Amino acid sequence: MASTTSTTAPGAEGVLQFQPLQSTVDSTFWMELANNKLEKYRLSEEPCTLQGYYTPARSSAVSAPLQLTSTSLALDGDAPSAAPGGPQPYIAWGSLYNVNTLDRFKSFDRERIMAKASEEIWCDIRSGAACANPALLNRFVVYTFADLKRYSFYYWFAFPALVPPAPMRAAQIGSLDAALGADLAAAVVQASESWRGACTDATPAPAWLVWLPGTNRSSEITASPLTDWAALQERDGEVILAFCDPCNLPSNPGWPLRNLLLLAAAQWGSRAVRVVCAREKAGRLDPTFSLMVDAVLPEVPAAWPAAADHPPSQEVEDPAAVPAMAVPKTLGWEVNARGRMGPRCVDLGPTMDPTQLATQAVDLNLKLMRWRVLPELNTEMLAATKCLLLGSGTLGCAVARTLQGWGFRHITMVDNGKVSYSNPVRQSLFEFEDCKNGGRPKAEAAAERLKAIFPGVKAAGEQLHIPMPGHNVSPQEEGAVMRDVARLEELVLEHDAVFMLMDTRESRWLPTVLCAHHEKIGINCALGFDGYVVMRHGHGLSKSTDDVAEGVGEASCSSAPRLGCYFCNDVVAPIDSTRDRTLDQQCTVTRPGLAPIAGALAVELLVTLLHHPQGDKAAADTASSEASPESPLGLVPHQIRGSIAHLNQLLIHGPAFKQCTACSPQVVQEWRTDSQRLVMRACNEPKYLEDLTGLTAMHTEVDSAMEAWGDEDENSDEDDF
Amino acid sequence: MASTTSTTAPGAEGVLQFQPLQSTVDSTFWMELANNKLEKYRLSEEPCTLQGYYTPARSSAVSAPLQLTSTSLALDGDAPSAAPGGPQPYIAWGSLYNVNTLDRFKSFDRERIMAKASEEIWCDIRSGAACANPALLNRFVVYTFADLKRYSFYYWFAFPALVPPAPMRAAQIGSLDAALGADLAAAVVQASESWRGACTDATPAPAWLVWLPGTNRSSEITASPLTDWAALQERDGEVILAFCDPCNLPSNPGWPLRNLLLLAAAQWGSRAVRVVCAREKAGRLDPTFSLMVDAVLPEVPAAWPAAADHPPSQEVEDPAAVPAMAVPKTLGWEVNARGRMGPRCVDLGPTMDPTQLATQAVDLNLKLMRWRVLPELNTEMLAATKCLLLGSGTLGCAVARTLQGWGFRHITMVDNGKVSYSNPVRQSLFEFEDCKNGGRPKAEAAAERLKAIFPGVKAAGEQLHIPMPGHNVSPQEEGAVMRDVARLEELVLEHDAVFMLMDTRESRWLPTVLCAHHEKIGINCALGFDGYVVMRHGHGLSKSTDDVAEGVGEASCSSAPRLGCYFCNDVVAPIDSTRDRTLDQQCTVTRPGLAPIAGALAVELLVTLLHHPQGDKAAADTASSEASPESPLGLVPHQIRGSIAHLNQLLIHGPAFKQCTACSPQVVQEWRTDSQRLVMRACNEPKYLEDLTGLTAMHTEVDSAMEAWGDEDENSDEDDF
Repeated sequence: MASTTSTTAPGAEGVLQFQPLQSTVDSTFWMELANNKLEKYRLSEEPCTLQGYYTPARSSAVSAPLQLTSTSLALDGDAPSAAPGGPQPYIAWGSLYNVNTLDRFKSFDRERIMAKASEEIWCDIRSGAACANPALLNRFVVYTFADLKRYSFYYWFAFPALVPPAPMRAAQIGSLDAALGADLAAAVVQASESWRGACTDATPAPAWLVWLPGTNRSSEITASPLTDWAALQERDGEVILAFCDPCNLPSNPGWPLRNLLLLAAAQWGSRAVRVVCAREKAGRLDPTFSLMVDAVLPEVPAAWPAAADHPPSQEVEDPAAVPAMAVPKTLGWEVNARGRMGPRCVDLGPTMDPTQLATQAVDLNLKLMRWRVLPELNTEMLAATKCLLLGSGTLGCAVARTLQGWGFRHITMVDNGKVSYSNPVRQSLFEFEDCKNGGRPKAEAAAERLKAIFPGVKAAGEQLHIPMPGHNVSPQEEGAVMRDVARLEELVLEHDAVFMLMDTRESRWLPTVLCAHHEKIGINCALGFDGYVVMRHGHGLSKSTDDVAEGVGEASCSSAPRLGCYFCNDVVAPIDSTRDRTLDQQCTVTRPGLAPIAGALAVELLVTLLHHPQGDKAAADTASSEASPESPLGLVPHQIRGSIAHLNQLLIHGPAFKQCTACSPQVVQEWRTDSQRLVMRACNEPKYLEDLTGLTAMHTEVDSAMEAWGDEDENSDEDDF
Repeated sequence: MASTTSTTAPGAEGVLQFQPLQSTVDSTFWMELANNKLEKYRLSEEPCTLQGYYTPARSSAVSAPLQLTSTSLALDGDAPSAAPGGPQPYIAWGSLYNVNTLDRFKSFDRERIMAKASEEIWCDIRSGAACANPALLNRFVVYTFADLKRYSFYYWFAFPALVPPAPMRAAQIGSLDAALGADLAAAVVQASESWRGACTDATPAPAWLVWLPGTNRSSEITASPLTDWAALQERDGEVILAFCDPCNLPSNPGWPLRNLLLLAAAQWGSRAVRVVCAREKAGRLDPTFSLMVDAVLPEVPAAWPAAADHPPSQEVEDPAAVPAMAVPKTLGWEVNARGRMGPRCVDLGPTMDPTQLATQAVDLNLKLMRWRVLPELNTEMLAATKCLLLGSGTLGCAVARTLQGWGFRHITMVDNGKVSYSNPVRQSLFEFEDCKNGGRPKAEAAAERLKAIFPGVKAAGEQLHIPMPGHNVSPQEEGAVMRDVARLEELVLEHDAVFMLMDTRESRWLPTVLCAHHEKIGINCALGFDGYVVMRHGHGLSKSTDDVAEGVGEASCSSAPRLGCYFCNDVVAPIDSTRDRTLDQQCTVTRPGLAPIAGALAVELLVTLLHHPQGDKAAADTASSEASPESPLGLVPHQIRGSIAHLNQLLIHGPAFKQCTACSPQVVQEWRTDSQRLVMRACNEPKYLEDLTGLTAMHTEVDSAMEAWGDEDENSDEDDF
């Protein structure tokens, strides 16, 4: 183990200086961290394990950095991908401390995490674990703060190096081939590469031994793991330490050698050791670029205590009385871009694809809800739920905007009208420009605006007339009307929830029938002058005949009674309400605050319903259900009726009506039998739906009964909501 | 009265044919009608009086039309303006029947209005009123339907002409100078113009008499009113009838002559009369263009009954038994553009200035409210009320949009931030484009969007930082902070209502102080995760010292106790709540439906308050005030607290707190004494506001009291709303 081929002049022995590792963090790492923060860590500040990647230096111009990429956090999954053009990188294990606020970052106790890492390294040295797995010597720590509102990331790395009791010195430093001669150097390199090639571990060990035969040179040069140290000492020859050296400098080794030499001094008792700093050129270890260092090591007392066992220094009354090595001093905080001790910050906002940024930002608020207040929130489910909005006026716009706020990603707007000049101040998806030249089609303009608000939404707009009972259809029009019916049915089928947001009562009839038939969630919303009703329709009628027969309020046995639809309170069929309307009846004469309130409540009702274990079969919550609603989001009422004049909200519920002209089994059955006949007769024959559902018979009975009672109850006019 | 200068060949006597009048309706008339419909008529279909304007024919190429302009409806105001280049026009009086629906228009009983007009004309002839005021002969009727959603106007004019028992015939028709010779014709013209020039009536009579001296030609030709007919008969000479003739044809008189000749036949018993059809060239009556007609009139029985006295024809059993003149048959419905009998329609939408169209359309919905449901609505007052919105985030956007819906026209947005990618889906005035390149300043982007929605709004955006108690201000920053304070005070002064819509509690402190000091309406709005509070601050403290001293809950004697502000429930001064916030605390983690609901309620609260007779001094309504709220718009509570999870709304009220750190007299007085000292100490000295208001003293007392009670009440953490 003597320095046999020393070329150093006597007295040239200097303090060995190591080039610090440098971190390089890929933006994909930050994206992954942001994602984990939102999805997994949330408010937790518990450290988590990282993989950093590094290679030997591959260019005399630059050192190899320690790199973090998107896979650095994915520890239960993929192996790290090889660096381009090179073999499998070496892994350094790190601990990530991600804190919640910038203030926490600024006041972070970095000495604590450094002490923890150095303690672990020291334990691994003393226990022999680091011999078996030298990667343990390259532990690093990083603490971070991810400002996800701005996509700025604050961070500070440390590569802990335990400081020995006295400096390590170099008796000699030079290139490997200068130190050993070209042949021997080539043989050392060859042996190292063979050993590494034969290594079956997922990741190669970053340090190893090379044995040079002694006087009997017949033996071959071999490479072997650090654990062979003791055995190799028995053999005639020289044992050289080798490690993967990320440093590019011609007269300094890289940072990883520090802890490795400490291991040699502490574990093996070495006072002098020859080291190969293995570096690469063109994908192979290179004897000219690699260094040979003859290191002179201080004595490291075996009694150096693990930090945990040692009393903290401030409690020691007389520092001079404590042995010099008692506290394992540690170095390694990385300097920042200005070369000073301090954290770094990377601002990814400006470099990200804006659409991508928007998508992540939009999800942010929703995911944040899961951290504290609403862990049950299923944002993926909302994003996948397809919503059909029938009507793109005041209510349609309000509903679409709230859906976007909740992260719904599939929104289809339907309307038959064009944007008029009075619309934009109340219909929040339109602007003045949309009104010019006769006005753009509303559905199309609304869908386009949804995309302008958030490019990640799948929004479509469709101009469609919805056939209405009581609105006569001539034989010539029948073909066109039935095409509209077919298209509406397609649309209902393609979506999960159907919002009825039109300005007439009767236009809600066909969608109500279709929702009942196709078992889609129906949400209905209607405005008066200063009051609103927001309701969900009862669940649809499944296609098994039994269900149809039983699909009325009273029938279900196991679950709650099926709830009513918008028409279930009516005892007459819907008629044409648009004929002969005066101007104030044609325009939406409602207090302007009504539509945003009702639209928002309609969406909140859907979101709450979607989180209810029974979905649209959930029983109607009432104000007295407050104690423990089954949905994590709160009450799932049947109907919410409110007034801005009285500033109240009532929760009302009612079962499905046996003779309902829209959702009753008779109507749905007739749709299934002959949809064209149903629609045409409903449009053209005022009494048809009442006959079909048995309302006519009921009226006759009631009339007979009333005759006995006189006409006291004549004034039963009801508002349209 | 014999036809002395007849040049007609015998037997050439033909039926006299009259050119119908044509209507021309200025678009300003339709605008005025639209305005009247909204402001005055509303749902009324009562007829109203119109002025139509016409002139003599002024070109041989075209007839002069009957014109309606914006002044046609303004009967209590301006005299009609003269047609360009001509003298005062003649007036025809009309009746306007504006109906409420297109169906009513289509089925309008036009025979009825025609019969009514002809009856009036006949009465005026028989009574002599038409002699005194010949304009009464030119009565017309028009019935209209104004489709104000589309700016389409449907209309049909009639110029009633009573049909005599037998046709009127022309013994002779020719130009005036051909009939009389140039000199005499010139003299007739001269006399007519002199008479007209001397006429002191507001509008000239459209018919007059010209007296030609008989055998003794020494007398001068004179013109005089129709009432001179009998007197002129006594004199030697010839009496000629003259009228303003809008017709341009060389051998036909215009429509106004029909009723005039009927008057001559019925009132004066004339069987033949010479008529000057007075027409103009170059601004003067022209003898070549004007016609002379020798008319032969049928006998008109004096017994021709007024229509009102006559039984309707259908009740007559044998029509042949009724005298021919019994039913005054009337002609005069105008043909439409296609030359058919039928109404006309003008669509002004495409030709109007879009900004003007938008302004009228936006007002439409509001004005419609006054027709039926809310006659007390004062839209002008709302348009004039200036609103300052502090905060342009989720709440700021929601409030601004609802303000626009209510017709507020002055909206100033204030914010200190920039639009970030997560904003547009929840902040309804922003789009994706606003987020790029670091984001546009929010206030500016919001104001611009308000104008894009409705160009008629006066919207401004201002980037301003609002100094906050507990947020330290260094001596170097003091100048800038005080400039912000001064600017905020200016803004508060310039507005009538101040909305506090920020995302921190303490940023509402200074605006609360300023509202109390300047007696501005303060509306406060704050969101939790699924709950909201919307409140109005108590009225401000007037600058008289008394008021300041008494401006607390208990003190007022005459009116209700002054209500509290946002800080009146606090027993500690506001502190910096932004330090060390985690990501979910920095972002608005609220259910997306919350902001539209709370924003809408905040605006509705302001609108209701503004309509309350006591304004911001109105006592707080509670749910039990429901019976008869003093505001026509409903309850004016102090605070509305609601939850989307529980779907309830509570009306809460509380008086101003004597020791309030924001609205109490001590604080307002200190502002008035030294605003800089107040702000700087509030920012830099945590206990200052508590000392100032006496809270510190109160705490000391309470602490002493608590010691006796133990610490049972420790967990008094309260949510931030």
